[in-house]
Amino acid sequence: MIDCDVHNDWASAEVLLPYIDPNFRDYLVRGELPGPRGAFPHAHRPWLHPEGFRRHDIKPATQEEHYTLMKEHLLDRYGHDVAILTGEEALEVSTLANPFYATALARAYNDWLIDYWLPKDQRFKGSLIVAPQDPKGAAAEIRRLGHHPDIVQVLMSSGSYRPYGDTFYHPIWEAAAEVGLPVAVHLGGQGGVNYNPIGCGPTTFFWETHAMLCQTGMSHVASVIAHGIFEKWPDLYFIVIECGVAWLPAILWRLDADYKALRKETPWLKRLPSEYAQDHIRLSTQPLESPENRQHLWAVLEAMDGKNMLLFASDYPHWDFDNPHQIPIPAGWRENVLDLNARRVYKRLPQSVNSGQSAVGS
Amino acid sequence: MIDCDVHNDWASAEVLLPYIDPNFRDYLVRGELPGPRGAFPHAHRPWLHPEGFRRHDIKPATQEEHYTLMKEHLLDRYGHDVAILTGEEALEVSTLANPFYATALARAYNDWLIDYWLPKDQRFKGSLIVAPQDPKGAAAEIRRLGHHPDIVQVLMSSGSYRPYGDTFYHPIWEAAAEVGLPVAVHLGGQGGVNYNPIGCGPTTFFWETHAMLCQTGMSHVASVIAHGIFEKWPDLYFIVIECGVAWLPAILWRLDADYKALRKETPWLKRLPSEYAQDHIRLSTQPLESPENRQHLWAVLEAMDGKNMLLFASDYPHWDFDNPHQIPIPAGWRENVLDLNARRVYKRLPQSVNSGQSAVGS
Repeated sequence: MIDCDVHNDWASAEVLLPYIDPNFRDYLVRGELPGPRGAFPHAHRPWLHPEGFRRHDIKPATQEEHYTLMKEHLLDRYGHDVAILTGEEALEVSTLANPFYATALARAYNDWLIDYWLPKDQRFKGSLIVAPQDPKGAAAEIRRLGHHPDIVQVLMSSGSYRPYGDTFYHPIWEAAAEVGLPVAVHLGGQGGVNYNPIGCGPTTFFWETHAMLCQTGMSHVASVIAHGIFEKWPDLYFIVIECGVAWLPAILWRLDADYKALRKETPWLKRLPSEYAQDHIRLSTQPLESPENRQHLWAVLEAMDGKNMLLFASDYPHWDFDNPHQIPIPAGWRENVLDLNARRVYKRLPQSVNSGQSAVGS
Repeated sequence: MIDCDVHNDWASAEVLLPYIDPNFRDYLVRGELPGPRGAFPHAHRPWLHPEGFRRHDIKPATQEEHYTLMKEHLLDRYGHDVAILTGEEALEVSTLANPFYATALARAYNDWLIDYWLPKDQRFKGSLIVAPQDPKGAAAEIRRLGHHPDIVQVLMSSGSYRPYGDTFYHPIWEAAAEVGLPVAVHLGGQGGVNYNPIGCGPTTFFWETHAMLCQTGMSHVASVIAHGIFEKWPDLYFIVIECGVAWLPAILWRLDADYKALRKETPWLKRLPSEYAQDHIRLSTQPLESPENRQHLWAVLEAMDGKNMLLFASDYPHWDFDNPHQIPIPAGWRENVLDLNARRVYKRLPQSVNSGQSAVGS
């Protein structure tokens, strides 16, 4: 079983001090922080989770316990074969005005990931976090570390300055294609230099906002398709993590209809938006929608070929964690969604299913 | 048959000159315009439709032909019982920085609507357009004209400065409740002082943008529910025009899940978001999604109780006009969607179905 969204946190952002570019080390040691010493430099979003966004039953007291509790409460409990680490606050570098500082922080995080986390457990695979507001620096970082055998994707926050198909970001896509990594977005980056993540301006409450953050996934899906990312780099996948899934059919139907009417705007496209999505876009399951009538969800998942489009994610250790034994998908889809689909997209994973998969295979 | 979105245009915005507040008349006569004389003052959106957004087969040469062509190509051809007029550029007052000028223009439009359009045809009903960036002026306008027997709703652009549940707008909701009119949004207002209508910043191409503008509907639906509009004013309906429909189930599933987890943020709510939607929110059909496999659409419409939630709209005379004879809904839903649902929401319409309905009743 492959879990595509596991958060490897730090006890304090000071773990980055040995790794950060000396030119920026002083910023972290003496510079302004959005919290006490040990806080990570970023522009926090204006929506504050009224319960805190972490599970209250998981309380690591030391840096080491971030791993040991994860091993006990996630990896060993559910029989994970692979846990793809997606960082935690490091994604928020996308909110900083200074792109050079943002890239320095992302580089320090990536070195810490490779040095501290990846060797800890054979089940770990890593995401290379980049600062999208610095496409040149992000591309350099992808070329610096993107060939590491345990790095499986490039990761950016879904909150952004522009939708990611924009030509501004093409150096990032080009570098990812060059090193053979898929590009993913994960919920985050909803503040600072980034545009409001939701259409029509700031929402008010956390729950309202959290529900609406699926719009970030929609905007990027539309943008990467329209800009022809998959014509320019036909081997790339784009993975949308933690933005929900059931909105996809409606969005693709709209994109197909509008593209058919006005395709002259994007002459580089050769296929329907929904066809690019089918071959190049994947969504992680968590938080999977869960209506009272499960048949309603399944009809929507069927319409988007969920059996082949979905990648299981738990979002451990966050408040809305999904238990792999309980996600509401048809029984016959479990092997695909919990395992095979991820192996197709994350090409550095072993391509055969090992014995651990049986733990969730029914 | 009731058509909830028919655009009554002007040959030139100079038709407003006899109606506009003398204080602002000079602005229209001598002031800067975003086009030649006769253009309407607003901040045009940055996305330009590469074909123009009007049907090329409908070319009124005079002001009068705006009506005669509509009569021939829409009202008589399809057997309309009621055409709810939604204006055209007047909605764009929402983009102006000067709220007083915006309200003056909206007032002039409303007077012209009542004076010129509504008496022309017994089938016409009107929408009172207001400038949402001026809640006090908008509320005064609703009280000034909201009791007119042929005015059936308050209308604002779906592009906005904030989502419309925000307390900033409560004077508008209060006035609408007082005069007994539903509040509607219609696609528009994607520029000027309004926030970007789409999450994550400006999209690039018109077709991509048009597909993503459904996000404006989502943001308002979430906001008006979360802010308790329907607890404060329990007789109100909120109508979302031209934002598509198939996204609604996914959005309500997300809202329900997040509300259940964090309801303490909004203690004024007594029911699930989806329950408020069922009783208080309606979506117009155009542009109705149209996937290759119609069963996929119908499964989604079933999940949102489309039979009771949808209101037919043609969007005449725009490029993506929907023919009432061809909209892809189940045959057993047609009487509801093309007629009865609208009579329930627009309480000033006659509550019984007259003979014209049979023209589209199968």
